Amino acid sequence: MPINNGDFILVDYVLKVKDTGEVFDVTIENEAKAANAYSPDQSYEPRLVAVGQGWMLKGIDEALVGAEEGQEKEIDLAPEKAFGERDGTKVRIVPARELTKQGITPKPGARIEVGGQLATIRSVGSGRVTIDFNHPLAGKQLSAKIYVRKVVTEPAERIRELIHRRIRGIPKERFIISMVGNLVTIEMPEEAFTAEDIQFAKKGLAKEISKYFPDVATVQFVESHVLKQPAKPAPQPEAPAKETPAEGTEAKAPQ
Amino acid sequence: MPINNGDFILVDYVLKVKDTGEVFDVTIENEAKAANAYSPDQSYEPRLVAVGQGWMLKGIDEALVGAEEGQEKEIDLAPEKAFGERDGTKVRIVPARELTKQGITPKPGARIEVGGQLATIRSVGSGRVTIDFNHPLAGKQLSAKIYVRKVVTEPAERIRELIHRRIRGIPKERFIISMVGNLVTIEMPEEAFTAEDIQFAKKGLAKEISKYFPDVATVQFVESHVLKQPAKPAPQPEAPAKETPAEGTEAKAPQ
Repeated sequence: MPINNGDFILVDYVLKVKDTGEVFDVTIENEAKAANAYSPDQSYEPRLVAVGQGWMLKGIDEALVGAEEGQEKEIDLAPEKAFGERDGTKVRIVPARELTKQGITPKPGARIEVGGQLATIRSVGSGRVTIDFNHPLAGKQLSAKIYVRKVVTEPAERIRELIHRRIRGIPKERFIISMVGNLVTIEMPEEAFTAEDIQFAKKGLAKEISKYFPDVATVQFVESHVLKQPAKPAPQPEAPAKETPAEGTEAKAPQ
Repeated sequence: MPINNGDFILVDYVLKVKDTGEVFDVTIENEAKAANAYSPDQSYEPRLVAVGQGWMLKGIDEALVGAEEGQEKEIDLAPEKAFGERDGTKVRIVPARELTKQGITPKPGARIEVGGQLATIRSVGSGRVTIDFNHPLAGKQLSAKIYVRKVVTEPAERIRELIHRRIRGIPKERFIISMVGNLVTIEMPEEAFTAEDIQFAKKGLAKEISKYFPDVATVQFVESHVLKQPAKPAPQPEAPAKETPAEGTEAKAPQ
């Protein structure tokens, strides 16, 4: 089945500046190392893309439509399908003291933050500095190699990938996902309980799930603190009661 | 029923240094204001005490045993039932530069931290400083007024008070507590999702519940992000599924 807008897919890619061959974004460890672009802080694995949602550069989003699982694609991206054309009005000359006042020592090529915006210092004259608010890759022709690794179709697996995108560093298999009617329940693994910014990750995740699953009204996160082995068999409750699913099982709603 | 060790009770109190009448701990707003001991950061309301667990000064813990709901008690506490006797070996003379090196300007009466321990500067001589590691109230005779406001007997209400003790600032009624067999489920209100240090509060709470309810093996926290009204009625699941209890209901285990 060719890929459509809205599909969830896992892709690897290598993105280069066409002229120089410089690799500026890459998801494959070997390729990163070969191009001297490896960073130990990055996790090298395929990325989740919701096709056509602007998660990727426009040209890549477009190239994915119609591709098939397992396919490799090499494409060139014109600036308007990548980081945009250069905009001359975004280049400004400012007095050097305006920067030194902020603790910035103007040096050509340096990336700085001015008024909340990132900029590049182009040149330093006598008391005057030229700064450029264009994206460093604006106006550049790019070349991209894309590998469509997997099309993710199962709703629970789509949710698992959305989780993984926001909560890295914890194996995605450890989240137990169930979908029943308009309720999604995500049982969190213990190592996620106190992960950094986890409460904000959950909040964002709930919104995202709600966006991509229009039928879902409630996203429920469950954290089970198992403190001891039960001292005696649990009494059978008579009243309607919550039940925990057996570990690893997933009840899925009919779609 | 007279109060026993292990009971959960709500108490108000006013604690004074007997000699000076200085109020150093108080749970009642009016009394705090009258004694010039009011702090806008404190919440004035009865405190939860698990009797005999060392949550309160020894003398108060002991005075609570045998008291009744609604009772008021005025007692004197000898140092050994309060902050202990003064220990002469905890007073040390150190070179002044040892403190100045740490950025402390020695001043008589100042509370300082030395090697992770709190201490009071007693006197400053020529190049030498006398510091006292005794608790400031060690050796003091205290007087306490205690009001037993409530004996909390219902298990779910005991848990509610344990929650309130750790998660202040959010009305305790908003937590939905259910107890079924060896599982306690606490449905968190939305305003608690991103409360400060909430993940650590939950962790501590789970341990505490496990301690005071020996039959409880698992404490489960549930956060429901309700994102939209259901677009259509939820299908009836055929598979065993989690169910959310209707808001406000509490299924309680037979004790």
